[in-house]
Amino acid sequence: MSKPIIAVSIGDLNGVGIEIALKAHEVISKICHPIYCINRTMLQKASARLHVTVPDDFELCEVEGEFDIQPGKVDAVSGLYAYESFMAAVHLCEEKKAQAVVTIPIHKEAWMKAGLEFKGHTDLLRQHFNKEAIMMLGCQKMYVALFTEHIPLKDVAKNIKYKKLKQFFLDMHNSIPEAPIAVLGLNPHAGDNGVLGQEELIITKAIKSANKKIGFEQFVGPIVPDVAFAPYCRNNYNYFVAMYHDQGLAPLKALYFDESVNISLNLPIVRTSVDHGTAFDIAYKGEAKTLSYVNAVQSALDLIDNKTHRQGYKKEI
Amino acid sequence: MSKPIIAVSIGDLNGVGIEIALKAHEVISKICHPIYCINRTMLQKASARLHVTVPDDFELCEVEGEFDIQPGKVDAVSGLYAYESFMAAVHLCEEKKAQAVVTIPIHKEAWMKAGLEFKGHTDLLRQHFNKEAIMMLGCQKMYVALFTEHIPLKDVAKNIKYKKLKQFFLDMHNSIPEAPIAVLGLNPHAGDNGVLGQEELIITKAIKSANKKIGFEQFVGPIVPDVAFAPYCRNNYNYFVAMYHDQGLAPLKALYFDESVNISLNLPIVRTSVDHGTAFDIAYKGEAKTLSYVNAVQSALDLIDNKTHRQGYKKEI
Repeated sequence: MSKPIIAVSIGDLNGVGIEIALKAHEVISKICHPIYCINRTMLQKASARLHVTVPDDFELCEVEGEFDIQPGKVDAVSGLYAYESFMAAVHLCEEKKAQAVVTIPIHKEAWMKAGLEFKGHTDLLRQHFNKEAIMMLGCQKMYVALFTEHIPLKDVAKNIKYKKLKQFFLDMHNSIPEAPIAVLGLNPHAGDNGVLGQEELIITKAIKSANKKIGFEQFVGPIVPDVAFAPYCRNNYNYFVAMYHDQGLAPLKALYFDESVNISLNLPIVRTSVDHGTAFDIAYKGEAKTLSYVNAVQSALDLIDNKTHRQGYKKEI
Repeated sequence: MSKPIIAVSIGDLNGVGIEIALKAHEVISKICHPIYCINRTMLQKASARLHVTVPDDFELCEVEGEFDIQPGKVDAVSGLYAYESFMAAVHLCEEKKAQAVVTIPIHKEAWMKAGLEFKGHTDLLRQHFNKEAIMMLGCQKMYVALFTEHIPLKDVAKNIKYKKLKQFFLDMHNSIPEAPIAVLGLNPHAGDNGVLGQEELIITKAIKSANKKIGFEQFVGPIVPDVAFAPYCRNNYNYFVAMYHDQGLAPLKALYFDESVNISLNLPIVRTSVDHGTAFDIAYKGEAKTLSYVNAVQSALDLIDNKTHRQGYKKEI
């Protein structure tokens, strides 16, 4: 069987992205067939700065545009090119010429300077596909999907709504069709039978209803949040749903900071990303690490596997 | 110099406590001089059940009372004895016959059956001393103090008040006089300059004001919560303040579940505790682990050191 084709969006060329892509090419080529969304001129400018030779099998999807690379500079033209590279990668997937997009970081301010009003890749994907992408972070040992994301803590409790939560579970099931998924409670001790909060009743109802529709007990919980990631609990699950940003990400980053990747579920395409920024401070210094990027490629392959499996298994709910 | 004297409250005798105390005696005797709050009759009943010989140097503070030990049973008489043992240990400290209390778990339902209406050791200490004990959990690698404890998540934000938070910092300083202490923000990304919540303004103000009164920059923050416990951040601090229960305890238990202990700060006495329960299911089976208990003794010694140091250093604020 041929290796899955991965479209790599090259990120902000004033950052560490291109160095990571070149460094990791040999490793990821063993598990996938990468296509890099950058033109030959820009690639040569970058590789010359990095003093590395471009590998012969470094296949390109040439994205138009030419400008001077200025390491560490927030620049509109570099921001725009990162956008064009990302859209080229998305189109490769939409046209079935690639099976997943792996994104290298863009710089949000550079996008703003270029007049692009998206908060980032995920926000752009939500608008492009008009779908509620699910944000999931982690690595093969532990993935955490976020039910609420970037909202003030005071607003979290009022966002725990039955219908929305149930739909979230069903959407997540469509991307992760089989693995058991642990759902955290909202309150200390998962509410201690209502003494420390009532939202666990809503969570319980949504879990039961989603499981009924799915046909088996895929979602388990609500789990007591402060022990959910203790070894005796986390070793039973690879997937978790956190009710809010820090509930999931603080334990994840405590355990697997360097290894984690960022994944968008519930979209027509598979998309994963490194979980770090453009690291302008070390751009073109040869210091960038490839672990998160290689893991992002690996996670994309896992999701392609899941998706292939699902299509022969049951229809989307 | 003689070793510090530690008063050990023996906990619920129907649980694992006495097994742990007997097993760990040799180890802890190397670093402290323990006094166990139990009478010889009860000790002999317990040691006979465990088929162990009581060490010759097992010093007792004899607490009156005699009853049949019933492993794993929630029992009023055993609950009451655990209470009497705890109060005896507290009195040893109040009378300066011991420098710290280390508590072995009681069973809350057994206390209820005995007509004792405290939620636990900490609650009893708050009432006994009429002081706002600070709850801190962790191990030598990482301690987390909780600004809010057992309240619903929806009520956390409104409890972030300037005066109370400043006093919390000053109280914590009195127990931990010198070490730098990292203070977490409340919101994702510590509010992202107010976009994701405003409470970080209050936290910042309280930190600045407390530091001014203390005389140096002991409290640092507000730190972005989801990266506070990532290695690059947590390696810079041994002490953290979390704004709410799961913000601090989920990462702590992800990293150091078995090693953690429970500490009460801001009391006239030093008190530490194991961070597990009575484990009735394995009582008198020889399976109980001593790690948390030994760490609780070690933490008590660290706090005695801090306290001794502080008394020669500056007065309480």
